[in-house]
Amino acid sequence: MNQLRVARYALDEAVHYGLVEDDVIKRVRGLPWEGLEETGHRDPMNRVKLLAPVPQPRIFGLGYNYKAHSLESNKAVPEIPVLFMKPSTSAIGPDDAIVYPADGENVHFEGELTVVIGKRARHVPEAHALDHVFGYTVGNDVSDRVLQRRESSFGCLLAGKGYDTFAPIGPFIATGLDPAGQRIITRVNGTVRQDGHSRDLVFPVPYLIAYLSKYMTLLPGDLIMTGTPAGVGPLAIGDTVEVEIPGIGVLRNPVIAEAQAR
Amino acid sequence: MNQLRVARYALDEAVHYGLVEDDVIKRVRGLPWEGLEETGHRDPMNRVKLLAPVPQPRIFGLGYNYKAHSLESNKAVPEIPVLFMKPSTSAIGPDDAIVYPADGENVHFEGELTVVIGKRARHVPEAHALDHVFGYTVGNDVSDRVLQRRESSFGCLLAGKGYDTFAPIGPFIATGLDPAGQRIITRVNGTVRQDGHSRDLVFPVPYLIAYLSKYMTLLPGDLIMTGTPAGVGPLAIGDTVEVEIPGIGVLRNPVIAEAQAR
Repeated sequence: MNQLRVARYALDEAVHYGLVEDDVIKRVRGLPWEGLEETGHRDPMNRVKLLAPVPQPRIFGLGYNYKAHSLESNKAVPEIPVLFMKPSTSAIGPDDAIVYPADGENVHFEGELTVVIGKRARHVPEAHALDHVFGYTVGNDVSDRVLQRRESSFGCLLAGKGYDTFAPIGPFIATGLDPAGQRIITRVNGTVRQDGHSRDLVFPVPYLIAYLSKYMTLLPGDLIMTGTPAGVGPLAIGDTVEVEIPGIGVLRNPVIAEAQAR
Repeated sequence: MNQLRVARYALDEAVHYGLVEDDVIKRVRGLPWEGLEETGHRDPMNRVKLLAPVPQPRIFGLGYNYKAHSLESNKAVPEIPVLFMKPSTSAIGPDDAIVYPADGENVHFEGELTVVIGKRARHVPEAHALDHVFGYTVGNDVSDRVLQRRESSFGCLLAGKGYDTFAPIGPFIATGLDPAGQRIITRVNGTVRQDGHSRDLVFPVPYLIAYLSKYMTLLPGDLIMTGTPAGVGPLAIGDTVEVEIPGIGVLRNPVIAEAQAR
């Protein structure tokens, strides 16, 4: 597949998908994984508001999927994919604010390569798994570390990773990338905090798609946040966090207090 | 609120919601939590196919929310709600088949009182939580016990409760019920296996809504499977499992082999 960058964006009260080319977005019809038929409209990038590339997505998350992150967390490398879901209400887009909860305890950033499914997948072998991918976006699996660990000690995981605004995604979906060839860099207020590479995934992308599809049907628009490399750390109110995957773009989000969000 | 029973059903290729009255369903416009305006159509119950009462729902599940079930599972009663999500693709309706996975290890039934949210909820106090409920349905939180425990030992939970067909729901949504006043009976091939009561929930329904809404926005149509009472046990191919909540109805599902489902 060609390397394209797809944006979802708002312009004059309407929402569109389009192909990004320098300072212009070439509008397409319908959902991008249904084909990328251009409408002929060209929207200037500086007039649009970029949105989360999938609205109300199903988000599958991975814990401890980089050996170096397991080590820094004093965890063994898991024998099976450590899977959870982040609720659709946790998704936000580029430049949207991460809301630091009033009772947040130790909220961490987690920069992640994020798969966007393009074609229904069930019982898909690894060898064909990438045929079911539409593209890749950048994700930040924001996590309240204290709550997350409390839940995990009871064998489950939801609230600590499920707060509203705890799943920034964007700015674009890039097609035609090698999922094992992506550098993932996280900066907080300009300082590099994570600099990992998707070649180091414990369970690589084709394995994850095959594994998930053994149990359930993956649907177009589903997201898989593939796990975070080493270097995680806390966010504070007033910070700006950026996750960059050079082939996709920079996902930038400010962190605000809950009182400011209400 | 009055006690009504709401069905979602297919008739002549179209899907409707309606109010159940004896052998007739009085069709309503749009989604039931948006009002229950009757269209004037009356559909005979014996001509319709009842469907899962919410299509592609977000399903929040609870582990170990009855003390007697924690005891039979050799688990301590948890100090916090043990929350997970079941993916929307796990939902099926009344009479739909639970597919026993080809590599399923020890698949259990779990009859559960299931909340249907009717009004957006965020930071809702317990005292007002039930204002956000549209009604209640019957759920079966089917679980592969071996896989579930393997995942939980890594602090997460998804695949073991997330297989396609592992969330039967229905047959109706009943409004105006007392969520602490419901008997939950599960039968396998006619033999009673669970006979619990929602007064024994460790974290009762208003607490669960308040707790979830502290973290995330609950949306109309969201389901909360509130956890299972004692008596869980295995299902086998060929079984028929029934979960009954007398004020709502009987949710009946056959169990078939994966080969039959393909």
